[in-house]
Amino acid sequence: MTTALDIRGIGNAIVDVLARADDAFLAAQDMTRGAMTLIDTARAERIYAAMGPGVESSGGSAGNTCAVAAALGARVGFLGKVADDELGRVFGHDIRAAGVRFPTAPLTGGAPTARCLILVTPDGQRTMNTYLGACVAFGPGDVDEAEVASAGVTYLEGYLFDPPAAQAAFRKAAAVAHGGGRKVALTLSDPFCVGRHRAAFRELVKGEVDILFANEAELLSLYETADFDAAVRAVRAEVGLAAVTRSERGSLVIAGDAAHEVAAVPTTVVDTTGAGDAYAAGFLAAHARGLPLPECGRWGSVAAAEAISHFGARPQADLQALVATPQSAA
Amino acid sequence: MTTALDIRGIGNAIVDVLARADDAFLAAQDMTRGAMTLIDTARAERIYAAMGPGVESSGGSAGNTCAVAAALGARVGFLGKVADDELGRVFGHDIRAAGVRFPTAPLTGGAPTARCLILVTPDGQRTMNTYLGACVAFGPGDVDEAEVASAGVTYLEGYLFDPPAAQAAFRKAAAVAHGGGRKVALTLSDPFCVGRHRAAFRELVKGEVDILFANEAELLSLYETADFDAAVRAVRAEVGLAAVTRSERGSLVIAGDAAHEVAAVPTTVVDTTGAGDAYAAGFLAAHARGLPLPECGRWGSVAAAEAISHFGARPQADLQALVATPQSAA
Repeated sequence: MTTALDIRGIGNAIVDVLARADDAFLAAQDMTRGAMTLIDTARAERIYAAMGPGVESSGGSAGNTCAVAAALGARVGFLGKVADDELGRVFGHDIRAAGVRFPTAPLTGGAPTARCLILVTPDGQRTMNTYLGACVAFGPGDVDEAEVASAGVTYLEGYLFDPPAAQAAFRKAAAVAHGGGRKVALTLSDPFCVGRHRAAFRELVKGEVDILFANEAELLSLYETADFDAAVRAVRAEVGLAAVTRSERGSLVIAGDAAHEVAAVPTTVVDTTGAGDAYAAGFLAAHARGLPLPECGRWGSVAAAEAISHFGARPQADLQALVATPQSAA
Repeated sequence: MTTALDIRGIGNAIVDVLARADDAFLAAQDMTRGAMTLIDTARAERIYAAMGPGVESSGGSAGNTCAVAAALGARVGFLGKVADDELGRVFGHDIRAAGVRFPTAPLTGGAPTARCLILVTPDGQRTMNTYLGACVAFGPGDVDEAEVASAGVTYLEGYLFDPPAAQAAFRKAAAVAHGGGRKVALTLSDPFCVGRHRAAFRELVKGEVDILFANEAELLSLYETADFDAAVRAVRAEVGLAAVTRSERGSLVIAGDAAHEVAAVPTTVVDTTGAGDAYAAGFLAAHARGLPLPECGRWGSVAAAEAISHFGARPQADLQALVATPQSAA
């Protein structure tokens, strides 16, 4: 059975507003450093009024992954809900201009396009505050069965579990993908998101997920353990393929009894926004080409390094040239 | 007479949309490489549909200068017209968050906030396409006499001569500033802008301008000569203080019989958008502190180098720290 797309991402369609801030600002605003926190309109307005000058860039976890995977030559589609407003047009333009098929109809007459207020501290760490806006209107009706069944991998972000209607869309997409003999990939997104939805995520990982992406904190949260080796044993028993990212220590790719340690690509950290999204994109783009798992991890490392070397999550360099250049053993 | 502000900038209030492009794209879109071209709605939509993924950042020539000068510690205000829409709120947030006083009322029920579609080629050169939108509604009524008279320097961008009502505002601001015993500074903005308004600019430079900013191409266009020395002689005879920027060759600061050659600060060129705006900001911020002219030029060079080292015109680094660090004699 041929595939029209390599990857179909489904996630919250968000425009990022990035600004620099110091730790005192995060403390004064009562933010959880490094986390993604959901906020309402009033809090979004208060934070925006207090934060420094910003740069706007299309974002969203799965949206970022789709843009990066397309930049690496994969055939990619995205489903997610923007509003019929200026930021919605910005999101739609950017993801389509990245070469991603984006058929979801915008929301009219409802909440505005989602935005994420991102504070980047001097160490490059990002702290995210998300106003979900139009994303809460994304539901099962937005999951076109033919669209999902035509993709080799359906890639779902854990954040999609926050808006309730999207949970149903998420489950439908997984069922459609498996019904069509396709693979389902999931990123756990954020340790606090795992905390909000642990039981459902555990069930999904065990029953529906073929490829799992997580960072170390998310994996430990999923299995409620402080022991990394125990978490690795647990995920190995439940998922066929898992890639666990460990910041500057690189990643661990686990496939049945095999495990591949993949080095990080050294770079200057400017802003970590989108690092995990880019890793998943590199991994999946290489996987779609049938490359061996260590090479999938290397593509992930290269894409993540590019993402953290500049402000904003979307790629600014020629990623295909970067993955074509062999890394030193640094 | 004390001043409430060091600098009051007046200019087109614009949000930039920056994307990478190659020279073939500029050719296919019939763009004048390196220039600022005015476009209408239909052309803006065609270019946006064709261009790559973008990053949005507040811009506008005088707006950029105000943001950079405020980052350097100057007391700064800005007058310019946005619409009451999402991009207008972005512009207003960013300039106020930069520490700039921005009292102009937004336009309601008219054209949307201006945007500039900026294509950055691999050499870092920027080619700008400006849809003026709400800027055409900026007029003499927006020039509050007390606001202008309270600033030591009223800084006007040449681009402001494009929307006709703004020309009248421009002339009123100059008259109010001089009436209050203040200085008037002008940037020539763009060689094509000089070409569109040469006679008026010549008259202004001779009669109204105390401090002139121009790059080499703009100065040559103003005096319709290919001889740089002849242009320098002409400007020396007409303006008390002029700073002429010459890209990697630094700048020449001309004050009566004196002339100071100022070195550029070496950096990696990512995107030249806002280089001239930042130079003027550095120069004026140092001038407001009473620093000697070569030091004003050096502050200009430092600010310009910061601007071209990243995507977008607004500062991303700690400029006060940068000007405090003595440069090597590179």
